[in-house]
Amino acid sequence: MSKSFWHKYQQRFAKLGSHVCIGLDSQLDKLPDSVQKAQNPIWEFNRAIIDATADFATAFKPNLAFYLADGIRGMEALYLSISHIPNDIPVILDCKVGDIGSTMSGYVRAFFQDMKVDAITVNPLMGRDVISPVLAEEGSFAFALALTSNPGARDFFHDGRMKEMVPQWLAQYDESRLGAVVGATQVNDLKDMRLRMPGRLFLVPGVGAQGGDLKAVLNFASDTPEAPRILINSSRGIIFASPEKDFAQTAAKCAKELFEACKL
Amino acid sequence: MSKSFWHKYQQRFAKLGSHVCIGLDSQLDKLPDSVQKAQNPIWEFNRAIIDATADFATAFKPNLAFYLADGIRGMEALYLSISHIPNDIPVILDCKVGDIGSTMSGYVRAFFQDMKVDAITVNPLMGRDVISPVLAEEGSFAFALALTSNPGARDFFHDGRMKEMVPQWLAQYDESRLGAVVGATQVNDLKDMRLRMPGRLFLVPGVGAQGGDLKAVLNFASDTPEAPRILINSSRGIIFASPEKDFAQTAAKCAKELFEACKL
Repeated sequence: MSKSFWHKYQQRFAKLGSHVCIGLDSQLDKLPDSVQKAQNPIWEFNRAIIDATADFATAFKPNLAFYLADGIRGMEALYLSISHIPNDIPVILDCKVGDIGSTMSGYVRAFFQDMKVDAITVNPLMGRDVISPVLAEEGSFAFALALTSNPGARDFFHDGRMKEMVPQWLAQYDESRLGAVVGATQVNDLKDMRLRMPGRLFLVPGVGAQGGDLKAVLNFASDTPEAPRILINSSRGIIFASPEKDFAQTAAKCAKELFEACKL
Repeated sequence: MSKSFWHKYQQRFAKLGSHVCIGLDSQLDKLPDSVQKAQNPIWEFNRAIIDATADFATAFKPNLAFYLADGIRGMEALYLSISHIPNDIPVILDCKVGDIGSTMSGYVRAFFQDMKVDAITVNPLMGRDVISPVLAEEGSFAFALALTSNPGARDFFHDGRMKEMVPQWLAQYDESRLGAVVGATQVNDLKDMRLRMPGRLFLVPGVGAQGGDLKAVLNFASDTPEAPRILINSSRGIIFASPEKDFAQTAAKCAKELFEACKL
């Protein structure tokens, strides 16, 4: 990793002026028939998707679960895909790890040194000891789960007041090293989270297949127009937009639409 | 997976009458010189450790981070190691995943169907949606993080009252499907957690290399003597007890000591 995530992200945003993160949730049994017979279907699929959509991507976000689910072949697809992403586009590994000590250092080594991603997502439940091994890696970046939009978020984020506590806790960390994952289906929540975390980079899932109103998201969650500090993730809405042979062209079309809609 | 974790665990406990979980935290750069030149050092190491210690293990617990950190070779070592563990000893994958929907189902598929482990550890922060994909897998079992003993546990478990909330939340789930990870260095906390969660199987890390007083742990955290419902994990204290060629024999000696000490 030659440059920090923060530098790469800012350069990429300056070039594109948009906020699209393309989620590579490449679930094997959802891939088009046309790639299913390839030696490594996920890699075959991702290569086509990356080539077709890179121009519209401020970042790519592969999701570890779907690669692990295809065993060793899936992990090979993950390595190949990360290497194939153009070097000026930041790669965020969605893994939501949240361990401590030598275990967390093991994850950091795996993801930043071996896979060479630029950022990861982390689960902050175990506290500051989750973050320190990440910060020990030069140029690294992590997005901490600050609020999610699934029904079960009621259990601890809302009823457990984690929604108030995590943003306050994140304030101790530099914005150039730590961002926040903020769920998008409740727009008032987003507005509230932005007030609690001005200046911090938000990774917002939940747009597209998971619902969510893009315009409202952009209005409420953006920081200043000059530095909006927001990445809008769309996964299935782009990569699985067509199950036919034209899947990559259709993905490009959908990525371009979101790209245009995300220009403030 | 032919039998449920719960059945396998109960059979194994009935046979051994002890509580030792051996943590396969097989960090590459800590392995003895004698295995470093093997084609797959972690697998070479684990095979010897498993063969030497299986008689004393009520369960084995490989830790995903250390396998990911050795790339594709590390993942191969993980698969080989899980296959090598005798079929009557439950395997708990320590991965602390905590996602939702198709992502969580991807992890469940990877770990239970592909790797064929018997149980996993999970991070409950995202709420009930983390648990439902696990329960959808027949015979599966998960240990949810209920309290950890690292300094950063203060941030959310203590100050954030997650320590009170998680045990209460766990009560909605059957004890034969869901257990709790409970940190061991603060014995009063353990006593408190047992009062909050009678009958639930505890996985207790923090014994051995991480400190913790074994006798106090057993007294405070055990349920009834007939059904103690506790697994005492030791990782580095067993597997890295000797850095020399005798590493496996030394591990067996340490595992046996803990095995005897854990007989109530």
